[in-house]
Amino acid sequence: MPYQAERLPREKVFRDPVHNYIYIQHRIILDLINTKEFQRLRRIKQLGTASLVFHGAEHTRFTHSLGVYEITRRICDNFQRNYPTQTPGDGLWDDNERLVALCAALLHDIGHGPYSHTFEHIFKTDHEAITAEIITSPTTEVNQVLRRVSPEFPAQVASVIQKTYPNPQVVQMISSQIDADRMDYLLRDAYHTGTKYGTFDLTRILRVMRPYKDGICFEISGMHAVEDYIVSRFQMYQQIYFHPVSRSMEVILNHLLKRAKEDYESASNRNEPAAPYLLFPFFNHEFNLEDYLLLDDGTLTTYFAHWRQSSDPILADLAHRFLDRKPLKSVKFDEKTKSLIPELRQLIEKAGFNSTYYTAINDSYDLPYDAYEKPTAQIELMQADGQLIELSTVSALVNAISGKFSGDQRFFFPKEMLSSKQDNVELFDPIYKAFQTHLHNDYII
Amino acid sequence: MPYQAERLPREKVFRDPVHNYIYIQHRIILDLINTKEFQRLRRIKQLGTASLVFHGAEHTRFTHSLGVYEITRRICDNFQRNYPTQTPGDGLWDDNERLVALCAALLHDIGHGPYSHTFEHIFKTDHEAITAEIITSPTTEVNQVLRRVSPEFPAQVASVIQKTYPNPQVVQMISSQIDADRMDYLLRDAYHTGTKYGTFDLTRILRVMRPYKDGICFEISGMHAVEDYIVSRFQMYQQIYFHPVSRSMEVILNHLLKRAKEDYESASNRNEPAAPYLLFPFFNHEFNLEDYLLLDDGTLTTYFAHWRQSSDPILADLAHRFLDRKPLKSVKFDEKTKSLIPELRQLIEKAGFNSTYYTAINDSYDLPYDAYEKPTAQIELMQADGQLIELSTVSALVNAISGKFSGDQRFFFPKEMLSSKQDNVELFDPIYKAFQTHLHNDYII
Amino acid sequence: MPYQAERLPREKVFRDPVHNYIYIQHRIILDLINTKEFQRLRRIKQLGTASLVFHGAEHTRFTHSLGVYEITRRICDNFQRNYPTQTPGDGLWDDNERLVALCAALLHDIGHGPYSHTFEHIFKTDHEAITAEIITSPTTEVNQVLRRVSPEFPAQVASVIQKTYPNPQVVQMISSQIDADRMDYLLRDAYHTGTKYGTFDLTRILRVMRPYKDGICFEISGMHAVEDYIVSRFQMYQQIYFHPVSRSMEVILNHLLKRAKEDYESASNRNEPAAPYLLFPFFNHEFNLEDYLLLDDGTLTTYFAHWRQSSDPILADLAHRFLDRKPLKSVKFDEKTKSLIPELRQLIEKAGFNSTYYTAINDSYDLPYDAYEKPTAQIELMQADGQLIELSTVSALVNAISGKFSGDQRFFFPKEMLSSKQDNVELFDPIYKAFQTHLHNDYII
Amino acid sequence: MPYQAERLPREKVFRDPVHNYIYIQHRIILDLINTKEFQRLRRIKQLGTASLVFHGAEHTRFTHSLGVYEITRRICDNFQRNYPTQTPGDGLWDDNERLVALCAALLHDIGHGPYSHTFEHIFKTDHEAITAEIITSPTTEVNQVLRRVSPEFPAQVASVIQKTYPNPQVVQMISSQIDADRMDYLLRDAYHTGTKYGTFDLTRILRVMRPYKDGICFEISGMHAVEDYIVSRFQMYQQIYFHPVSRSMEVILNHLLKRAKEDYESASNRNEPAAPYLLFPFFNHEFNLEDYLLLDDGTLTTYFAHWRQSSDPILADLAHRFLDRKPLKSVKFDEKTKSLIPELRQLIEKAGFNSTYYTAINDSYDLPYDAYEKPTAQIELMQADGQLIELSTVSALVNAISGKFSGDQRFFFPKEMLSSKQDNVELFDPIYKAFQTHLHNDYII
Repeated sequence: MPYQAERLPREKVFRDPVHNYIYIQHRIILDLINTKEFQRLRRIKQLGTASLVFHGAEHTRFTHSLGVYEITRRICDNFQRNYPTQTPGDGLWDDNERLVALCAALLHDIGHGPYSHTFEHIFKTDHEAITAEIITSPTTEVNQVLRRVSPEFPAQVASVIQKTYPNPQVVQMISSQIDADRMDYLLRDAYHTGTKYGTFDLTRILRVMRPYKDGICFEISGMHAVEDYIVSRFQMYQQIYFHPVSRSMEVILNHLLKRAKEDYESASNRNEPAAPYLLFPFFNHEFNLEDYLLLDDGTLTTYFAHWRQSSDPILADLAHRFLDRKPLKSVKFDEKTKSLIPELRQLIEKAGFNSTYYTAINDSYDLPYDAYEKPTAQIELMQADGQLIELSTVSALVNAISGKFSGDQRFFFPKEMLSSKQDNVELFDPIYKAFQTHLHNDYII
Repeated sequence: MPYQAERLPREKVFRDPVHNYIYIQHRIILDLINTKEFQRLRRIKQLGTASLVFHGAEHTRFTHSLGVYEITRRICDNFQRNYPTQTPGDGLWDDNERLVALCAALLHDIGHGPYSHTFEHIFKTDHEAITAEIITSPTTEVNQVLRRVSPEFPAQVASVIQKTYPNPQVVQMISSQIDADRMDYLLRDAYHTGTKYGTFDLTRILRVMRPYKDGICFEISGMHAVEDYIVSRFQMYQQIYFHPVSRSMEVILNHLLKRAKEDYESASNRNEPAAPYLLFPFFNHEFNLEDYLLLDDGTLTTYFAHWRQSSDPILADLAHRFLDRKPLKSVKFDEKTKSLIPELRQLIEKAGFNSTYYTAINDSYDLPYDAYEKPTAQIELMQADGQLIELSTVSALVNAISGKFSGDQRFFFPKEMLSSKQDNVELFDPIYKAFQTHLHNDYII
Repeated sequence: MPYQAERLPREKVFRDPVHNYIYIQHRIILDLINTKEFQRLRRIKQLGTASLVFHGAEHTRFTHSLGVYEITRRICDNFQRNYPTQTPGDGLWDDNERLVALCAALLHDIGHGPYSHTFEHIFKTDHEAITAEIITSPTTEVNQVLRRVSPEFPAQVASVIQKTYPNPQVVQMISSQIDADRMDYLLRDAYHTGTKYGTFDLTRILRVMRPYKDGICFEISGMHAVEDYIVSRFQMYQQIYFHPVSRSMEVILNHLLKRAKEDYESASNRNEPAAPYLLFPFFNHEFNLEDYLLLDDGTLTTYFAHWRQSSDPILADLAHRFLDRKPLKSVKFDEKTKSLIPELRQLIEKAGFNSTYYTAINDSYDLPYDAYEKPTAQIELMQADGQLIELSTVSALVNAISGKFSGDQRFFFPKEMLSSKQDNVELFDPIYKAFQTHLHNDYII
Repeated sequence: MPYQAERLPREKVFRDPVHNYIYIQHRIILDLINTKEFQRLRRIKQLGTASLVFHGAEHTRFTHSLGVYEITRRICDNFQRNYPTQTPGDGLWDDNERLVALCAALLHDIGHGPYSHTFEHIFKTDHEAITAEIITSPTTEVNQVLRRVSPEFPAQVASVIQKTYPNPQVVQMISSQIDADRMDYLLRDAYHTGTKYGTFDLTRILRVMRPYKDGICFEISGMHAVEDYIVSRFQMYQQIYFHPVSRSMEVILNHLLKRAKEDYESASNRNEPAAPYLLFPFFNHEFNLEDYLLLDDGTLTTYFAHWRQSSDPILADLAHRFLDRKPLKSVKFDEKTKSLIPELRQLIEKAGFNSTYYTAINDSYDLPYDAYEKPTAQIELMQADGQLIELSTVSALVNAISGKFSGDQRFFFPKEMLSSKQDNVELFDPIYKAFQTHLHNDYII
């Protein structure tokens, strides 16, 4: 039997708190899960610093990747049961596409490293490029499993993730405004944070989803379920992903890695016994895939534990602030009040903080729904007569948030700047007072 | 205002997936949470290797500790609302005990380290002694916070955890057959594994719980709620905590740490650049509290990543098996078939495995409910006339599992021993066959 | 002890699927629940004909009334714990208002009869006036219980429901855009229909709710929880309360009662043995409170069962359509296409249906949120400095649906008009065809 | 296309709070649901008087019947996907049996009338016989739908319900210790009462269920899921189905119908204008199927509303007690204390109550699991080698409750007997006191 067709003698399941069970039916899926590159995702948290605000959110990219696979599998089942292709080009579902879709779903995040967002920013890595490399490089276990299907198969799987695969139905399952990736992370992050905003009716959305010639659309009878998903997503961004304290911890992480890199470049602690050997390739801008795959969340925090005892007081302090969760405070500003930031920074310097490492500007903006992009990125609803109609034209709620960026700009600074007389801090008291007159109702004024 | 009475100007909450919210009302509780010793619990998983079987179970001891605090708080609220003491010795609740109860609840697990069970076994550490030390040693932030109440307060908190505190109601809140600790972990582990066995009716149990002179008992009207809790606990042990694959990963971890220690003792890799410096004090049996507090799950897995590349092939292979999740297989045995194990071990050696590192015997037994211990460890129900009656005398279900150990004994061995002809393994084929004739229906025969 | 202060020796609870438990602490609440007027609510479904579409939605007004009481109780607890009044007029909560609030919450729907909306329309009853009468008339058990507090107490309770009570905090708990009534029915209807749209975060809303001098407002930190509630409410209206099939069954019910009344007026079946004696007072427009309180859902359906066998074929057929759930079909129209309805009605008459009883126009419109009403009907958010800001000015989602009516207008007609050739209906075929050319994508064209 | 094979052009769904969706794929299932006999189940509550204790439990037999259908459908899907028959007699699943299984599942309760248990007792009706009659009598809509499959089909469907159908797999799906009927009602009753006892892991049980030659068994890996189901069922009986207040309301209902029948027989109110015409056939013991199908819960309560005003004071009082929920009180007794009941009855008579109508003995016993019945009624587990092993031999919990009746015997009496001096009841005070000396800790002594 060819490998791609090889089914497990009996379905295997993984118990999952969000989907109840993850069903594994093909040997190749089980083999991919058992690769070392995939198992490594168990050691990389899905939400990074957000778990420092929502303490239940300690789930990993491993868990999420299984969930994306499972949703994709359910979409394929539904398509095959209800919309099987009859003649090529009829815009219905060709179940020969199932395997590439499932593999792409499972592997779409395989290139993520620890605290990806920040890590990439400092070390100029690119998790999407690394995802493609893990899939297509012959050195990985993942590639070796995929190649058993055919020599071209790894490249096909990668192209789905890169959105260049020819069948738009397969691409949109994994990457679109309402794809298996987003659906899983909204539900999963809501489950583990314990918030209810991210909850929407997955079963109903899967039921009204259908293939058509340009990709995937939705029965118009399911409009409200889709609308509810868009609103849930909007609220999760506002409430969870853009949480100011979580961003504040990201700011600290950013400054911490930056400082460590600078220390390394100035050769200050390169030969200490507990030096961060696994980071050296990144400090040197000469890392390869193997170096990258040795890293996980624990590697970074282990080095931070070392750095707590560094002779560089800023490095040690930032490591302490990150590990012991001492967030910076923050305040919103707008285009008008932005001009006050230099003044605030001066006051912070006067109070004894290096403003390069103890202040930051950070904006978080999301486009909750974009009706104006190229057609395939919109959400299309199919009417009784087969005509499509774009979601925001029939949903007042979606229209309200369509095409508008939401989020805010914040200025981050040390909590110490909010000290008050009661704290018996005398020396810097006038500075603190001057600083505080610029803050009102969570805004710079 | 004395520190112990200091309330936050406004209740603070932590969003929690199990209890919805954790309510913080006293400044001291917030201060304890913000200590570095407590924040460290964020980096130690509650279930250790079980998350390698139940992938959602990535929650930490930090989360659980907050939950135990919250359940204790609710018990105190209920006792104060319904059973406030009138005269000393009336067996009702004295709310002056609240603070010591809350602090003990929050800190009861503070001494846990990474993969505690295994770590303790190899390095002869003792998390209970360390818990007491963190609370009473003047070097810790936890102790500094507690001492602000009074010089004796740390010792009082420690004595609650050690069950020597004079008020049995406070002790039993934290440690008894149906305490805040067990109630939280059953619910939380059920939530994160996604199983339903651990679910019981917490609200109802809290409602029927009441103080009496010898501790805590339950209204007889709540008998079935208590019974349901005992059964849930029994099932969680059978299904989650005793899962053979999870125990198998613990076996690997055990052998891995043991091997590393032996390698260190034979000085083989002590000076490698990426040596496990943070473990040296433990290898040397000369660790202090500070050494201990530098460790977390990530520290261990980071060293395991280093060891993957060790020159010791057994160390490298065990590190790979742990990180990439390659469990040993296992089979049950009993007193009769135990005698066959040496023979099985020989076959395993013949197949090329060092049986010291690639086999193990492991038994998991729990006493689901013990009616025969000293009175205060039983679960007592209060009847309409105020008389107490012990749970197992009125519940057929509890009686069925009362005083009986449940669990099993398993022999662990490499998966390779199950290889078959189809795997094209010729050399060892007769050995494998001989081995396999001794296995039937998950038992050694 | 005065009756109003009389507490139950021990809290009594009712198990509730939505709130887990309903807690009863005052004797008066238990006495009110035990009156025959309140017990009667067990026999009146909360959602009327909607249970014919969402089969799980068989819950009653009894259940909902307990839920409104419980939410009100929790609001009072929160206000008393966090915002107790210090000096008269400080805009904080005076817990002496608790009892009138709880009684009003419990009794706010006591005047509802079977299928209220339709029944009122046909028989010119008014459930609000009847609610006031049940509370204030000395003939009812409810009134007798309330009068034990004081002679004025019944009128006070009634005035809360009628929104004339002087304390706006009490009034707004029961009647405002985000009151205990709406919060309970959204959650409860969502629970029993099995939809997820109505789910919002009650605990969080209760937490951010606070009293102020003009009523009740919300901490600005809870903006998204309030926003989520408004969106949930919008979606419940769109999906559940305005469901076309449910409205269709209401149309049938309306026509059925109307026909029965006309038959009675024409004396056609007044003396039949199984005559609807309990409805006679309503047919005669001479009913009193006692007559009204004898009716419940079962009374109506029992008469409908009698009417199935009526000599009036239209009455019999409508009774059959209602009891056996044979809904009319419907289609949307707008101001432009409204003019086609007479033509459609003519075709329906030609096909043999009396269009008075077999067609209807029905519109369902809701104002999801009104920011333009008098101040106290808006939802106000309190900022850090104590200033209020109206919800729709900070929420894009709420602003999107604010002040806009949502819903649709539908024309209802017999399903038979959609018959097709395949149904082998020859006689009326051209009529059906003519009719069907006017329908497209759920609209009249 | 033959009717039995006719699939709906597109799956139709009913939203269900327990199973999320009920999926309808065959036209015949939709046609059966639309019969008047099936729609009538919407007006018959599933739990009868239990909704007077658990106010959320207002769900009907309609809802439950859909649920049993849905579980059966899922079992068939699983069997067809994983265990399709290859050769006749191989003990695997023949999907040609699906239709008869689905129809039997849907219709298994179709013969239930209002408050079946009590109604049958008084009027000697038999809901199982009526179920068979509705299915096989040519006068019903149900029969007309079924006959479209084949003339023998109705009898086949009836034989499944009567357990005489030749294929034991089909019979056991609907009727066995762990069948679709029980699984649905446990989950549904738990959902609507809001208790958690009835919750078990349906998905897992369906997953481990499998056909074999003598019926249905379970993979041994699912032992704990099956065990959990047995324990849940045990607890639901103890907590919900045997609740003393619910049984007390059944006692009142029983006495009320009995009294009405006796009044009718003595001709006392036969010609009153509001006579219970629909009950006359039952009073006369001359009812036919049509008479039976006119009854529902509302018919009975409507007559009770009439009887409130009866000239027979006992009838009027019992009607009031039932409608206004005034339960009798009760107390347990055993074989020893049974002899005291005549004395208690005498005291009750002395206090002015007719003991025939105001007292009762009622026992509630259930056999939670019977391992000793004929093989097919046991729960069998399949081991790795294909051998079966009976559940109670491997589960300590099941063994504990196996073959033992659980429940209690209670004596019911008027609440007035518990009156106390404080109630200012002087006349009967010595009688009350004498009565009360026999009650202690919920037992007769």
